[in-house]
Amino acid sequence: MGKILKVDLGTGATEEIKLNKKDIETFIGGSGLGAKYFHELVSPGVDPLGEKNVLIFMTGPLTGTKAFSSDRFEVITKSPLTNIYAESDCGGKWGSMLKRSGYDGIIITGVSEKPVYLNITDRSVEIADAKDLWGLDTFDTHNKLKESVDKKAEIACIGPGGENLVRYGVISTGGVHARVAGRAGCGTVMGSKKLKAITVYGNKKVKVFNQKGLIEFNKLHSKAMVDEFRGMKEYGTSGGLAGCEELGDLPIKNFSTRRFSKAENISGRYMAKKILKKKYYCGGCVIGCGRIIEIKDGKYKTKGQIGGPEYETSAMLGSNLGIGDLEAICKFNELCNRYGIDTITTGSVIAMIMECNERGLIPKKDLDDTKLVWGSVDAVIKVIHKIGKQEGIGKLLGKGTRAIAKKLGSYAPEFALHVKGLEIPAHDPRAKISLALGYATSNRGACHLQAFAFDFLGGNTISELGFPEPLDRFEVNKMPEFVMKMQNLMSLADSLKCCKFILFYFGDHVLTRLAQVLELVTGRKMDSDELLLAGERVFNLKRLYNTKCGISRKDDKLPERFLVQKRGEGKYEDFLPPLGKMLDEYYRLRNWDEIGLPERQKIKELGIEEYY
Amino acid sequence: MGKILKVDLGTGATEEIKLNKKDIETFIGGSGLGAKYFHELVSPGVDPLGEKNVLIFMTGPLTGTKAFSSDRFEVITKSPLTNIYAESDCGGKWGSMLKRSGYDGIIITGVSEKPVYLNITDRSVEIADAKDLWGLDTFDTHNKLKESVDKKAEIACIGPGGENLVRYGVISTGGVHARVAGRAGCGTVMGSKKLKAITVYGNKKVKVFNQKGLIEFNKLHSKAMVDEFRGMKEYGTSGGLAGCEELGDLPIKNFSTRRFSKAENISGRYMAKKILKKKYYCGGCVIGCGRIIEIKDGKYKTKGQIGGPEYETSAMLGSNLGIGDLEAICKFNELCNRYGIDTITTGSVIAMIMECNERGLIPKKDLDDTKLVWGSVDAVIKVIHKIGKQEGIGKLLGKGTRAIAKKLGSYAPEFALHVKGLEIPAHDPRAKISLALGYATSNRGACHLQAFAFDFLGGNTISELGFPEPLDRFEVNKMPEFVMKMQNLMSLADSLKCCKFILFYFGDHVLTRLAQVLELVTGRKMDSDELLLAGERVFNLKRLYNTKCGISRKDDKLPERFLVQKRGEGKYEDFLPPLGKMLDEYYRLRNWDEIGLPERQKIKELGIEEYY
Repeated sequence: MGKILKVDLGTGATEEIKLNKKDIETFIGGSGLGAKYFHELVSPGVDPLGEKNVLIFMTGPLTGTKAFSSDRFEVITKSPLTNIYAESDCGGKWGSMLKRSGYDGIIITGVSEKPVYLNITDRSVEIADAKDLWGLDTFDTHNKLKESVDKKAEIACIGPGGENLVRYGVISTGGVHARVAGRAGCGTVMGSKKLKAITVYGNKKVKVFNQKGLIEFNKLHSKAMVDEFRGMKEYGTSGGLAGCEELGDLPIKNFSTRRFSKAENISGRYMAKKILKKKYYCGGCVIGCGRIIEIKDGKYKTKGQIGGPEYETSAMLGSNLGIGDLEAICKFNELCNRYGIDTITTGSVIAMIMECNERGLIPKKDLDDTKLVWGSVDAVIKVIHKIGKQEGIGKLLGKGTRAIAKKLGSYAPEFALHVKGLEIPAHDPRAKISLALGYATSNRGACHLQAFAFDFLGGNTISELGFPEPLDRFEVNKMPEFVMKMQNLMSLADSLKCCKFILFYFGDHVLTRLAQVLELVTGRKMDSDELLLAGERVFNLKRLYNTKCGISRKDDKLPERFLVQKRGEGKYEDFLPPLGKMLDEYYRLRNWDEIGLPERQKIKELGIEEYY
Repeated sequence: MGKILKVDLGTGATEEIKLNKKDIETFIGGSGLGAKYFHELVSPGVDPLGEKNVLIFMTGPLTGTKAFSSDRFEVITKSPLTNIYAESDCGGKWGSMLKRSGYDGIIITGVSEKPVYLNITDRSVEIADAKDLWGLDTFDTHNKLKESVDKKAEIACIGPGGENLVRYGVISTGGVHARVAGRAGCGTVMGSKKLKAITVYGNKKVKVFNQKGLIEFNKLHSKAMVDEFRGMKEYGTSGGLAGCEELGDLPIKNFSTRRFSKAENISGRYMAKKILKKKYYCGGCVIGCGRIIEIKDGKYKTKGQIGGPEYETSAMLGSNLGIGDLEAICKFNELCNRYGIDTITTGSVIAMIMECNERGLIPKKDLDDTKLVWGSVDAVIKVIHKIGKQEGIGKLLGKGTRAIAKKLGSYAPEFALHVKGLEIPAHDPRAKISLALGYATSNRGACHLQAFAFDFLGGNTISELGFPEPLDRFEVNKMPEFVMKMQNLMSLADSLKCCKFILFYFGDHVLTRLAQVLELVTGRKMDSDELLLAGERVFNLKRLYNTKCGISRKDDKLPERFLVQKRGEGKYEDFLPPLGKMLDEYYRLRNWDEIGLPERQKIKELGIEEYY
């Protein structure tokens, strides 16, 4: 790794920051290095939509190399949705192209007066006028920039959602394939800076310490990896959706009920049967979990081939809204992608309003004539447009569930399902209790990927983290340690930049394999302990920032629903996660005090005392 | 009715206000007349604990006559617990004595510089120094004033709770018998005004239009009334506590669970067997539901005979805390009575903390070393002392559940069980859905007495309100009309001033009987429609005040628990009240708009447009 591009949109000044060896050794890259810069540049009181917020794009040491599934980058900023630390990971092909332009990352400061885009090549950096792009959706923006800049350029852009400051705007790459940095409103910050897009293009080689060794490593593992993920390849991330329904993991009607008869109809299997055209592969991937679909006729006919919905989208905008029509969900997905808004939060805000409406807790006038009832496809389409355009009820819904609850006064704020302002994604913490603790303690709010512990349950093992036996999904006692270690591992992966799915393939040997890859790519030798310690450091670094924003145990919580509302009969259906007990143990293991603030001694051990 | 005493504690000035006929005809007395004065004297922005709040004591036309169970008065003020309209009804013997001193009511304005008490006789009004009383509990205050003022005087006073501004201080009469104006912090307002007590004594006759007729009316009904309430006489208000447990009506562990094996052990039947010494009768009562108990030995030995716990107390401080020891509950009751704090809210705040603690949602340091776990009698005793004295954790608990939730940040505010800031009393709205609508729409927040509809269910009928057939406790469609009419009836009873139990005895003929009594007492003839209209007028008058405080549909709600948390298996256990649907119909019937604001036309019809 070499240098970071810094662009001040207020003055137009650009600058190159040379990375020093110590920072790379300490913070690895991606999420870690981004968090370090973020700490230094953004004080806790900064308005996320003001000129003092900073938007950081950061690749990792693996990005752009031939290391498996490593074409990824991280966006770090202060979230306009949660008002705390935010990061959002993105696949596609933009990250490697940024590296080939010669930069490991970009730090955007200030606010431009008028809409601009940033055109980065291996020869030049240009802040260009985006007058003709402003207002276009992400698909059109992508296509237009491909025409005007360079067909080979990769483009990260926002849609009208981010421009209009919907609080959960995404940064989208890949045009119709929509590989996005989706959560916590990174696209909104881009919109607030009047930055419509960043195009990157370059021919520079990404240096690799042992290219031959890396190719051999890939050869050794690729067949087994493809085997491991055969289902994922065939059916995408929503292949197991019906299984999630069986387990009680699938969100149904704002997580209020237990059974959804149409689960199979919105699953990846059904998609593969009916409308799947191709798989989409991020750079360096052998799996191809991305979907490319086409609907040839009917109400939801597509204009050619476009990206299809992920599991999260099919669940949050499908079963979570009582909708069992896959083609309708594809339409929702396309609309959200075009407007550039997060499908998870969009599903959650609409579900919240539907539930309040079903229970008669919201006056009709506040509903703005949208007939938001479970299963109403037309109403959802109407509302997504309103959110994207920030019209009528869309203005309120564009603020996220926490703000909706606050704005509406007190009718049923309890139906706002979020942690720290970030909406609960499509896995139920009553079905897999690692999620309960993971959601409660994830640094960006309710996130399933920052611990990603749930998919290691039920059969898989991960010996190098001390779990050679499969953990039961309701195992309370061991869960705090497991979640903590998984968070450390995921913080490491977010810093190295690699697809988290490959960690599941590496399984029992995950740390050994990551050490191998890191050495092949950079020549640096790190043992398992060092790697995990690096992850722990990054996780704590992010927590430290949040504690300065006032985050403590009082925020490490779950909506009441998940603590008290049983959903049926029988042992599993009646299980509720004992969050508090798990938190006590989790804090103890983390060396955090009883209200969740890291102890100075731990921070000192991690070598980040200057951020305390 | 004749005149109202007005006392300005700031200046020491006193004044007599002559009641005019039109006001009496329009607002009847008690709650109605009090609400009228309150509207005129207290603007919606006034600080409940500041000098601009006003404390109104108001008797009704029946108070002090020989009309059944009518020795009651109403206190009206702006609540320091809810910050909206508050009223609190009280039995005992103070109301009739106030009337015999020559006044129908007292309006207290301003704040005294130093502690005082008000000494009212039929000859004089004196603001006296209360230096020697300040700090005494209600029992000692009562006894001391009996000694120093007049043994025949009746005394209303506050304890250290009200002095120390615990937000739910009560006004207590009857000394150890503790007949109190209990809810919403009327005693706290008295404390903020530095008014320790009001002693009343007089020999004036209370004029009755047809004394002979009234005596005959009583003769005609008293035996049947005693028969009707035989259980109430024998076992008090908690005689049916075990039955409430059967029905799912009893609060158990902060309303979180369904079964309590010790229900019988804390019931009135058990009390009658073990520790009951006598019945306590309010003035004019033939039932005697009040309990006088004595515990002769053991840990909770009493100093002689004192008042025993009501149903609400035994439930809120018993089963609701997982406590099945009646003698311990008697101790809690005595402590709350001595400190002068509301047993319902006290039970609710303690249960909230116990539940948060059980779920591990509250850091130990916030618990102030009180080991608040279900069933811990010693901890409860400790905490009641801390609340009364406003020490340690008692400072926080003294603010009520809504404020606790706000203060603690966001750990589990959902376990704060209140409506509009007033804690849910000891009846579960999942067991009797009239309570769901009643709690949501009661003008003073969650109150079971402002509709009191639930006890008319399950066998009783009330033909004159249009309900000649018993209503099922889960009947959704007819409930809005029933609750609305019951609220109107109860607002009438709160204005006439009579014990609400006698309304149950009057049953099918309730309006006819009330018309008879009113005519016998005052000579005024009102038919059933006029009586119910008067109740409707008073109910709307109170709602109008609240709407000026910002109250609307968003506040007419229930804690999520009661809307989503089923408690067991089977039809009844799984029932959840459809609050929104009932609200829609309720607003329609009330001629309120869809967000719950009374339509001008309705207010005009009720003749209270000047308060719109």
